[in-house]
Amino acid sequence: MTAKQTILQLLQQTDGYISGQELSSQLNITRAAVWKHIRSLRAEGYTIDSVTNRGYRLLHSPDLLSPESILAGLKTHTLGKRVFCFASTDSTNEEAKRHALQGVPDGSLFLAEEQTQGKGRLGRVWTSPPGSGLWFSVLKRTCLSPLQVSNMTLITGLAVCRAIRAQTGCPALIKWPNDIVIGSRKVCGILTEMAAEVDKVEYVIPGIGINVNIPSFPPELKKKATSLQIEMGKPVPRLPLLLAVLEELEKALDAFEENPLAFPEEYRQLCVSLNRTVKFFRNGREHHGRAVDISSEGELLVQEEDGSLTPIYSGEVSVQGIYEESF
Amino acid sequence: MTAKQTILQLLQQTDGYISGQELSSQLNITRAAVWKHIRSLRAEGYTIDSVTNRGYRLLHSPDLLSPESILAGLKTHTLGKRVFCFASTDSTNEEAKRHALQGVPDGSLFLAEEQTQGKGRLGRVWTSPPGSGLWFSVLKRTCLSPLQVSNMTLITGLAVCRAIRAQTGCPALIKWPNDIVIGSRKVCGILTEMAAEVDKVEYVIPGIGINVNIPSFPPELKKKATSLQIEMGKPVPRLPLLLAVLEELEKALDAFEENPLAFPEEYRQLCVSLNRTVKFFRNGREHHGRAVDISSEGELLVQEEDGSLTPIYSGEVSVQGIYEESF
Repeated sequence: MTAKQTILQLLQQTDGYISGQELSSQLNITRAAVWKHIRSLRAEGYTIDSVTNRGYRLLHSPDLLSPESILAGLKTHTLGKRVFCFASTDSTNEEAKRHALQGVPDGSLFLAEEQTQGKGRLGRVWTSPPGSGLWFSVLKRTCLSPLQVSNMTLITGLAVCRAIRAQTGCPALIKWPNDIVIGSRKVCGILTEMAAEVDKVEYVIPGIGINVNIPSFPPELKKKATSLQIEMGKPVPRLPLLLAVLEELEKALDAFEENPLAFPEEYRQLCVSLNRTVKFFRNGREHHGRAVDISSEGELLVQEEDGSLTPIYSGEVSVQGIYEESF
Repeated sequence: MTAKQTILQLLQQTDGYISGQELSSQLNITRAAVWKHIRSLRAEGYTIDSVTNRGYRLLHSPDLLSPESILAGLKTHTLGKRVFCFASTDSTNEEAKRHALQGVPDGSLFLAEEQTQGKGRLGRVWTSPPGSGLWFSVLKRTCLSPLQVSNMTLITGLAVCRAIRAQTGCPALIKWPNDIVIGSRKVCGILTEMAAEVDKVEYVIPGIGINVNIPSFPPELKKKATSLQIEMGKPVPRLPLLLAVLEELEKALDAFEENPLAFPEEYRQLCVSLNRTVKFFRNGREHHGRAVDISSEGELLVQEEDGSLTPIYSGEVSVQGIYEESF
């Protein structure tokens, strides 16, 4: 951490005032240097009170996504401990892949205020307007087999769902495999990419896009997409939500790596696809059925009209009543 | 193709002399320009006879791995049609990955005279001394599922095995999944890496290392490794072998993409692991058995001592009598 990051963290951890002397001795820098960093933090939007003989006190933090603000608040071991922030980039997943080749550490976080070529699953476009969402990817090095990565994506969805529920109180649910929906509309999409040998994953990159403070959607998306601001009726601070997602994600992925066979029951409880009529394509034919369970390999188990049980491993499954689907 | 590449190809395709006038009119360049390219080809080691009033004739091609020499002789549709040659690089697979991010076309070939950080399967080192081997990777974009890639690696091994047999007459065989052996020693290793979403591969990079003209191996490798030069008792031209591998590989991969379920019977015929005693580890325990078949999913089926049939999907399987293994 830089001196400025450490000062911000000390201010955040101190309930009351902390003296300039204390800061200067803890960081082993001059009081003039402390003052320079305080001024720089104020310029970034932090409200810091200073009182002679008492010192400094943090009154208000801006909703700023910067390496300083993220690292000062983040309670993880590895995930997000190296931060790359971009005002604008093609896609945070592409940034992560480019940096992975250069050997950046496990857990690196890639975050952009705007993506110009944001990507969704199955080659789709993901709209990522500037300043209104959380568009980020993390680089997770792992030695799982490629087969286990599909469960990892389900667990990523679960972690994001948990964080949204905890931070906003919104009744977010998971549409299999890992869309996050509120009511019948999508609030978050996740695209997981990986680099692997045939039998050994090198790294996984979950790319997460959360519609946070998008005030409204164009007519063609209005019935399929929502944002946290629309659901809450007011803007939602992005920084605490980002921190919560990273913390939930680290917890969930660590547990998964330790025991890849233990599929969390909580996923089933939060999965909006279950016990609903669903539609999918197989061998060019449209199939209908009822989603009845998730297998321990993460497949959606669909009971078809003839009574047969079909495990769905990949691709798109439409759910009656979600995203305006009716059939 | 550049003018020089076209001239080389025309010289190769012409049985006898081709006039400077013919070359200059076919390429729509001056005769002085034709002469400049001829001189440049001679400087690269091509022996080109020139006779007044008859023109040029190619007498001898050097065993040169250059974009010109490769493209002039290559009979494929896509594979190898874009060539990147390096005197020395870390690893041709890494080159391929870096270039893939920059959007180079499907089928691009990455070839190095020397790899300083050559990689083998399962994180091992692959020694790639300068000028004595074929160290190359190809970028194959595909829409297969990650599950299908394991068969693709078996088929890559089969294509290389075919090419070595056809070009040298050596009785090369395949050690499951895709080492190529002659007798009991390894002559070629293949490391296949991929970039994928959970249910859709973006590209596959088969990296192929063939020990061609390595005159001898250090004592610790002597009993496990061989080269084509050692087997044949004389140096083997690298260029025709490279071209043969690329042509076999394109044929095999095209057939596989068209029908991923048709596992080629020829693989079984050339697989040295079958009908031998093998050893593998599972759940930390050493297992012994007899390899009896390859499943249509590319798994090695091992009959254990208690009669049970274990399908092996990944990892290392030692074969009695191969690479000095005895157990």
